[in-house]
Amino acid sequence: MGELLGVAVLGAGHMGADHIRRLARVVSGARVVAVADPDLARAEAAVAGLTGVTVHTDPLAALDAPGVAAVLIASPGPAHEEALLAAFARRLPVLCEKPMVPDSTGALRVMEAEAALGRRLAQIGFMRRYDAEYRRLKALLDGGGLGRPLMLHCTHRNVSSPDGFTSAMLINSSVSHEIDAARWLLGQELTAVTVLRPTPSSRAPEGLSDPQFVLFETESGALVDVEVFVNCGFGYQVRCEAVCEAGSARIGEAHTMVVTTRDGAREEVARDYLVRFADAYDCEVQAWVDATRRGEVTGPSAWDGYAASVVAEAGVRSLETGARVTVEAAPRPALYARPGG
Amino acid sequence: MGELLGVAVLGAGHMGADHIRRLARVVSGARVVAVADPDLARAEAAVAGLTGVTVHTDPLAALDAPGVAAVLIASPGPAHEEALLAAFARRLPVLCEKPMVPDSTGALRVMEAEAALGRRLAQIGFMRRYDAEYRRLKALLDGGGLGRPLMLHCTHRNVSSPDGFTSAMLINSSVSHEIDAARWLLGQELTAVTVLRPTPSSRAPEGLSDPQFVLFETESGALVDVEVFVNCGFGYQVRCEAVCEAGSARIGEAHTMVVTTRDGAREEVARDYLVRFADAYDCEVQAWVDATRRGEVTGPSAWDGYAASVVAEAGVRSLETGARVTVEAAPRPALYARPGG
Amino acid sequence: MGELLGVAVLGAGHMGADHIRRLARVVSGARVVAVADPDLARAEAAVAGLTGVTVHTDPLAALDAPGVAAVLIASPGPAHEEALLAAFARRLPVLCEKPMVPDSTGALRVMEAEAALGRRLAQIGFMRRYDAEYRRLKALLDGGGLGRPLMLHCTHRNVSSPDGFTSAMLINSSVSHEIDAARWLLGQELTAVTVLRPTPSSRAPEGLSDPQFVLFETESGALVDVEVFVNCGFGYQVRCEAVCEAGSARIGEAHTMVVTTRDGAREEVARDYLVRFADAYDCEVQAWVDATRRGEVTGPSAWDGYAASVVAEAGVRSLETGARVTVEAAPRPALYARPGG
Amino acid sequence: MGELLGVAVLGAGHMGADHIRRLARVVSGARVVAVADPDLARAEAAVAGLTGVTVHTDPLAALDAPGVAAVLIASPGPAHEEALLAAFARRLPVLCEKPMVPDSTGALRVMEAEAALGRRLAQIGFMRRYDAEYRRLKALLDGGGLGRPLMLHCTHRNVSSPDGFTSAMLINSSVSHEIDAARWLLGQELTAVTVLRPTPSSRAPEGLSDPQFVLFETESGALVDVEVFVNCGFGYQVRCEAVCEAGSARIGEAHTMVVTTRDGAREEVARDYLVRFADAYDCEVQAWVDATRRGEVTGPSAWDGYAASVVAEAGVRSLETGARVTVEAAPRPALYARPGG
Repeated sequence: MGELLGVAVLGAGHMGADHIRRLARVVSGARVVAVADPDLARAEAAVAGLTGVTVHTDPLAALDAPGVAAVLIASPGPAHEEALLAAFARRLPVLCEKPMVPDSTGALRVMEAEAALGRRLAQIGFMRRYDAEYRRLKALLDGGGLGRPLMLHCTHRNVSSPDGFTSAMLINSSVSHEIDAARWLLGQELTAVTVLRPTPSSRAPEGLSDPQFVLFETESGALVDVEVFVNCGFGYQVRCEAVCEAGSARIGEAHTMVVTTRDGAREEVARDYLVRFADAYDCEVQAWVDATRRGEVTGPSAWDGYAASVVAEAGVRSLETGARVTVEAAPRPALYARPGG
Repeated sequence: MGELLGVAVLGAGHMGADHIRRLARVVSGARVVAVADPDLARAEAAVAGLTGVTVHTDPLAALDAPGVAAVLIASPGPAHEEALLAAFARRLPVLCEKPMVPDSTGALRVMEAEAALGRRLAQIGFMRRYDAEYRRLKALLDGGGLGRPLMLHCTHRNVSSPDGFTSAMLINSSVSHEIDAARWLLGQELTAVTVLRPTPSSRAPEGLSDPQFVLFETESGALVDVEVFVNCGFGYQVRCEAVCEAGSARIGEAHTMVVTTRDGAREEVARDYLVRFADAYDCEVQAWVDATRRGEVTGPSAWDGYAASVVAEAGVRSLETGARVTVEAAPRPALYARPGG
Repeated sequence: MGELLGVAVLGAGHMGADHIRRLARVVSGARVVAVADPDLARAEAAVAGLTGVTVHTDPLAALDAPGVAAVLIASPGPAHEEALLAAFARRLPVLCEKPMVPDSTGALRVMEAEAALGRRLAQIGFMRRYDAEYRRLKALLDGGGLGRPLMLHCTHRNVSSPDGFTSAMLINSSVSHEIDAARWLLGQELTAVTVLRPTPSSRAPEGLSDPQFVLFETESGALVDVEVFVNCGFGYQVRCEAVCEAGSARIGEAHTMVVTTRDGAREEVARDYLVRFADAYDCEVQAWVDATRRGEVTGPSAWDGYAASVVAEAGVRSLETGARVTVEAAPRPALYARPGG
Repeated sequence: MGELLGVAVLGAGHMGADHIRRLARVVSGARVVAVADPDLARAEAAVAGLTGVTVHTDPLAALDAPGVAAVLIASPGPAHEEALLAAFARRLPVLCEKPMVPDSTGALRVMEAEAALGRRLAQIGFMRRYDAEYRRLKALLDGGGLGRPLMLHCTHRNVSSPDGFTSAMLINSSVSHEIDAARWLLGQELTAVTVLRPTPSSRAPEGLSDPQFVLFETESGALVDVEVFVNCGFGYQVRCEAVCEAGSARIGEAHTMVVTTRDGAREEVARDYLVRFADAYDCEVQAWVDATRRGEVTGPSAWDGYAASVVAEAGVRSLETGARVTVEAAPRPALYARPGG
């Protein structure tokens, strides 16, 4: 564990700046050596106070900067494909924020490019796999004591949606987390999806179908339902209950302090995913740094990124038609393990 | 509040015997004066220790016994229609266990018979309306502070199903409680139903589709989902979360004692509906006795009994076909208030 | 179970009127036949709508009224001794609200009078023994699975104290419930008491030592601590944690509905003991009616009433002196079982 | 934020090895450059896989090793005084595990030595101040919304005590955490202590007075009670309830996953303080590294270390005598802020 891992960060927006801070001041064993953003001033602001970092407008220039041994992609989704292929060409390990590639055709190209290399370089940023509660649930299910999972009941609520959020984004941006989590928890692919649209909340922006209720079917016939409600107004809540043959297990209801006043006994509800999943992001990046320094690639793979794209696209079609849509995916290359691996 | 209300109880099986005990020893203001059961020995056993009760094999004889001022019907479902019509003919107030009548055609006949009388005589035994938690949730929703309800998430789990329980009975026996509760809580009719069948638990008897996942749509476009799982093995759980525009509210997770040992912190889960809803049955019968002594009829009506039949029949068709089925009900007579009334 | 039990109720104030309502309209098997109160109008108001009841200003006249087979004493504490002795003289079974007799000398006289009869007639109104949560805790401790109890941690909070409430009343009125509950749960007598006085809350009336922290020692060396806080402002809370050799168990934190809004996840806290313990009062009186109709006397005895007086008096002395005070009780007559019996 | 902070770690036992791992692989901005332990093999094992570290048997040699810019003391308590004074002589910032110095006389010498320097160098390892739940409680109390704190109810339970654990160590090792936490949360000194000894658990080793119940009084007349039970057998539990004039707040009951099986609904209870407080240790060391790199000293001071010693010694005297003991402390030097600072 000698040298610090030199990381190029692509993208210095909200998420990129947070990852730069994390690499520089939170996780152990890494340092930021290059940052790229089309807005150079934004890149410079994100590295203020750090030494030994070069800033670039061209992401490829950042990849080629001295000391770069790994890449963290936090640029907008449409820029991911080119960045991933460039990292592959340079044989650089890469941590790529979700979505890996916004459309499944591009995702397929990325996956096939990596498969052609014959070894994994990419980890996709499905950070829930690094959340302590999800890991505990995964360990419980894998342990087998509760028997076969029959259903997952999921809730995904945000206080409010950002400007420009569309009905399709409830599926391909919000529910994409549940898509990966369900595949990983169950160790199975999702085979069909049906999206239901209750009458929207009057708090949702005009034209936004919010909330939605999404039903997934799995290879073995398990059922996954997701309430997604991005203008719920009252908090950021991510819950999951696994119902199995011999019991059920729930996460996402942890509380840390109970305050009792004349208004009753009250627990705080987190209002932001960066708060709720702060530790998960830290663990994700630390795990990626540690594995990379050992010369390994672990975590969600390009197949996972591709599978999430394909399922999300089927979901958007169901949203549009109201009908059940089956998921049609390319065959899984031998390089990639089962989703629960 | 002078005279005790003389009640004829039809049926002395499990439920009938429990109601006889309740009328005689728990609720105030009533006494059992006649009991009918085809098995006379069973009727006699159920009234052991009570005085002033006549026992009969013929339910009509029980209705005509001296001192009878009201009827409680706890006989098997197929016997209900005749008993209800006989009570109506005698202008006797009646509390009828659910289902009011097993098939919607018979239910319609009963409702029309009462409507023709021009006044209500029947209260149907949807006892969840008398459960303290459901009442609190109803009061909260009616208060309006949480805004319009958008979704209800319901869970209905039993340890194991009795012999002879069929896949259709998950809908028309178990979920019929959620059908009434949803109509009452939301103050709306259910307009369509879709039943999904996950791969059954290996603990379910051969051929039983258990669990099932049932989706109801309402007049205003709200969504009601119900997990029904009658061989879950781990307890009797009835939960309901109402998701509204300004917040959510959950019931069914009450605990009374937390025991911490080397196995963790543990709360008991009720194993039986007669335990979980014991107070609700007591309150239901007390409320019926009190109203009857005042000369009033309150609580779930024959319309509620009919509506539950119609919705459950649509659910069973969806179970068989896998498709969404719309609910086709007769018009509601003026005698009956909205479901939330 | 033929005849209804005819009950004379002494006292028609807040508690007496509530018991009259309970006997007439809630519990099964009893009827109110006589009521006595120095304020005749108050007695008449309390029986409005009931038939067959005589009202009296003289409690002895009520005991002698036609149809009286049992007595419920809900008059002020100073009137209890005379009423109890009069009931004993008439061999009438009696349910006496706490305190049995306010001072331990009078309590001793009552207990000795009953012991001289050679049979029990009195049940004392320690209604927590009839609360479902306390009963569950008692059953758990008696079951032995958690091993020997080492400590009880108790909390007793009221929103605010009534006018005229004194520092001593925190002990002999509020904590007297914990005195009986601890004796019953542990099946042991309390042998010493120390009262600590933290700086009072600014919400407490001038001169009232509120909160107080009370420590009891038991025969076997277990420790019972009680926070009593009668002007806490935020709710009525009664909690108890039993810490044993193999685990702990807590009651008093039950919730029925969780409401989540932008202010967090909130559970209601009861504000009044008649709400929190409504079921316990119902069960207590029903159990007394049932036992009395069977010719039995069960529940807390005159010894329990006497013991509570003696311990509370020691507590008040400790409150005044700040020192530990040992409890000096008369020997227990053979008629009375151990406190946990 | 250029150079990594070079740290000498004194002591390579259980806690020292854990801190070496933390500095090398978890926190950002530091590296271990020297380790001292009387057992050289143990020191070498603790740094296996790290580069650029020298190992020593003499702690002073470690302080003088090249690259040392700060010291972390994790050696046994009796070695702390000499190590602290040596660090002060070298003007090295130091993080010293608790107890700062086991006896208050030595603790006073250390504090006076630092005070004579006129600036702070030492941070004492009371890591609860870095636990997320405690910080939230502190923020709530400081915010003032609940009014003045009147009482703290604390629980401190371990599964079992290590060999050689004495009755005094329940106070000066276990409860010392509550001593610091109470001083910090309330922003007040503790002025008196009374230790009660319930009959020991049969699971406690022969001769060990376990559990104990400890009462502290504060400057303003608040009361702090602590159940300490180091052989409870069922888990590691650290709870704290602050009872204030306008409400109460509780921490230490967080759960992450609820598992429901036929044995009930169960939450895991942590079994070890390194699990429960893992994040707190990480945050404590990260905060120390960050402050040191900025040239600052924050966190619990030598005064806090001294005050904890003095209060714990008073507690041990109360344990021995059974009587209330007042705390007699030296005056607080101007260098040190109030305990809640």
